[in-house]
Amino acid sequence: MNAHTLPHVVILGAGFGGLTAAKKLKNAPVRITLIDKNNYHLFQPLLYQVAIAALVPSQVAFPVRTIFRSQKNLTFQMGEVNEINLDEKFVKLDGSVIAYDHLIVAAGGRMNFFGVESVEKNALYIKNIESAIRTRNHLLSMFERATREADADKRRAMLTFAIVGGGPTGVEVAGALAELISHVMRKEYPELDVREARVLLLEAGDALIASYPDELRKATLRLLQKKNVEVMFNARLTDFNGQKIFLADGTEIETNTLIWTAGVQTAEVVESLNAARAGSGRVRTETTLQLPNHPEVYIVGDAAYLEDENHQPLPMLSTVAIQQGNVAADNIRHAIKGQSQHPFRYKDPGLLATIGRNAAVARIWGLSFSGFIAWLIWVGLHIYRIIGFRNRLVVMINWAWDYFFYDNQARLITRY
Amino acid sequence: MNAHTLPHVVILGAGFGGLTAAKKLKNAPVRITLIDKNNYHLFQPLLYQVAIAALVPSQVAFPVRTIFRSQKNLTFQMGEVNEINLDEKFVKLDGSVIAYDHLIVAAGGRMNFFGVESVEKNALYIKNIESAIRTRNHLLSMFERATREADADKRRAMLTFAIVGGGPTGVEVAGALAELISHVMRKEYPELDVREARVLLLEAGDALIASYPDELRKATLRLLQKKNVEVMFNARLTDFNGQKIFLADGTEIETNTLIWTAGVQTAEVVESLNAARAGSGRVRTETTLQLPNHPEVYIVGDAAYLEDENHQPLPMLSTVAIQQGNVAADNIRHAIKGQSQHPFRYKDPGLLATIGRNAAVARIWGLSFSGFIAWLIWVGLHIYRIIGFRNRLVVMINWAWDYFFYDNQARLITRY
Repeated sequence: MNAHTLPHVVILGAGFGGLTAAKKLKNAPVRITLIDKNNYHLFQPLLYQVAIAALVPSQVAFPVRTIFRSQKNLTFQMGEVNEINLDEKFVKLDGSVIAYDHLIVAAGGRMNFFGVESVEKNALYIKNIESAIRTRNHLLSMFERATREADADKRRAMLTFAIVGGGPTGVEVAGALAELISHVMRKEYPELDVREARVLLLEAGDALIASYPDELRKATLRLLQKKNVEVMFNARLTDFNGQKIFLADGTEIETNTLIWTAGVQTAEVVESLNAARAGSGRVRTETTLQLPNHPEVYIVGDAAYLEDENHQPLPMLSTVAIQQGNVAADNIRHAIKGQSQHPFRYKDPGLLATIGRNAAVARIWGLSFSGFIAWLIWVGLHIYRIIGFRNRLVVMINWAWDYFFYDNQARLITRY
Repeated sequence: MNAHTLPHVVILGAGFGGLTAAKKLKNAPVRITLIDKNNYHLFQPLLYQVAIAALVPSQVAFPVRTIFRSQKNLTFQMGEVNEINLDEKFVKLDGSVIAYDHLIVAAGGRMNFFGVESVEKNALYIKNIESAIRTRNHLLSMFERATREADADKRRAMLTFAIVGGGPTGVEVAGALAELISHVMRKEYPELDVREARVLLLEAGDALIASYPDELRKATLRLLQKKNVEVMFNARLTDFNGQKIFLADGTEIETNTLIWTAGVQTAEVVESLNAARAGSGRVRTETTLQLPNHPEVYIVGDAAYLEDENHQPLPMLSTVAIQQGNVAADNIRHAIKGQSQHPFRYKDPGLLATIGRNAAVARIWGLSFSGFIAWLIWVGLHIYRIIGFRNRLVVMINWAWDYFFYDNQARLITRY
């Protein structure tokens, strides 16, 4: 069979969902075009470590072309898809038309500021390499500026760091930032009294990591407090002007730093799809991940809305995206062979969140862990997962060294 | 003696000169304030490797505060010095006044485009982390764009890379870029015919690395040509509009890429000094490195103009800056003790330039080396020098691995 007569699978997005689907189709009788606006796959679970200067971008981002060097049925295209034409079966990539036989929409998510413009304008967030680097530069600059600030109130505002959102990301950022301050900044800024520095974690509800069992929520709170993170519950943000946070209950917090971790919505290109929606712009798919009325289109990852057996929405997590990427790829194989489509069922591998070094909370095999054991599980799992991309002993050693000894050299303030 | 009654040494610049002087004054009876506009020391000799995606910024930039963690008589300040007041003995740092008893001006250099505005506007260069990253993003983007360009002429222009300046930097960039194309891009862009790609090295004179002995100039040319670099002599640039290079002899070269390596001038703050000048804005100092009429001010590195015993200007190289930093620090000690000032004499440690992997030219102990042996000397020397900053085995292994196997993951296109 001539290669050009093979069915053409277009995959939008080289995140966890798209990457998994593309790999799974390696030996399938298809031509694959994988499209992403970046030339790299981003290992999102460790991105927050770029923001707190523990890792550098090349440790969490891997060039797509390198990953697929040996996969002959795949072409990579870097660019922005601005249109999906479901009826005529093509996507538009920076103006050029790419026709598809099967389409996998794995375009991921972007921050959701819920329409609060002042926050969107003034807050930091950690969703891509650029915003993570911007956060890093800002955090480090605050310390440099504080060394030159004689006014004690202004200095305290510079050294007050507010993180909004008590989900896993917010918890991880707060814990890691508190440790950066107490372990590293204390040594590197002898002219500052770093006890002036505060890390605040603002949660609108009354619990951290709301989807975890109660004992883990409590353990998380305890571990954060031990690291001197001040957790504020029922803290509903109304405004942030870059100098001050305003809460619904009238509280004002003087700070130059707000890191927003409180919401994700689907990518813009997904919003343009004519389809039924759930919250955050997610598309309601068939259980087979197909778009209703368009069986040749599969939606995976953050963009897809499905519920588990308890009628809870599946979370926007890499584990969901990976499993869905596999199922979408399998279903394309089935479709080509004229076989029936299989439904997607999420196998929950557990939940994990670190709270700085040596501390984490984990829920695995129906068991809850917290503290050092959970942290060891977290380290092992992430090294295992990241090795899948790099497979290089030296990188693992380097990464582990940096992580264990907090001795890495990522604390650069760059002017990008 | 109370610390505040100790003489205050202000050092402008944490490059090779300033850093060396600051370290040398570690146990001297002085207070030191080290000022740099960045929070890191940049290892300039390897910066071009960031531009060709072989190393990442944190491998060539080291936070100043980490370097001086254990030096108690030093305070670091990050900021821009916009004024040096020689008569009243203070510098202005972002508006605040810092008085000094002794001043070391080690502010380094910046690119010199010799007033050709179109080049300044459209050319790439490699002088700091930001411009190196911009160069990397541009080079990698050209390959991505070329994969989508159907017009053969436009595609060839995207894959034509011109480097201007046949000095050590130009030679190193040209050699490394040619290798990146033939070793890496060939594998990662199977849809491109990378034989279409050209690397041009444009030199206005009639020799490469003009300050080297004749046998090394010839070896350099031979090694570059072996790597398919097209060297053009007597190529005098008159204009570059981002699409086309115009040479004085009427030649036009269609290319989207011009990397300018052909000139350095002193930093802006040095230009504001009221002092006698040589070329490139360099300040004519006493042989003791003191500024005439201001014995408490020392000029070191790129900013200082001195001649060797053959009346040739000392080059703007890290080796000169390091030796001068040591002498300036010693002379401050002498001044404090009321002893006489020592003149600076440059001990030429030789010259070294790499031409891609496995090839270099070197001039050491009066001997010329070229090819693999020179390259081994280069690798050994740079690992030795960089280890002085990081002193970490793992980093060295990682760096060597990346360098030897061309397998690093620095090929990210970022949107900074």
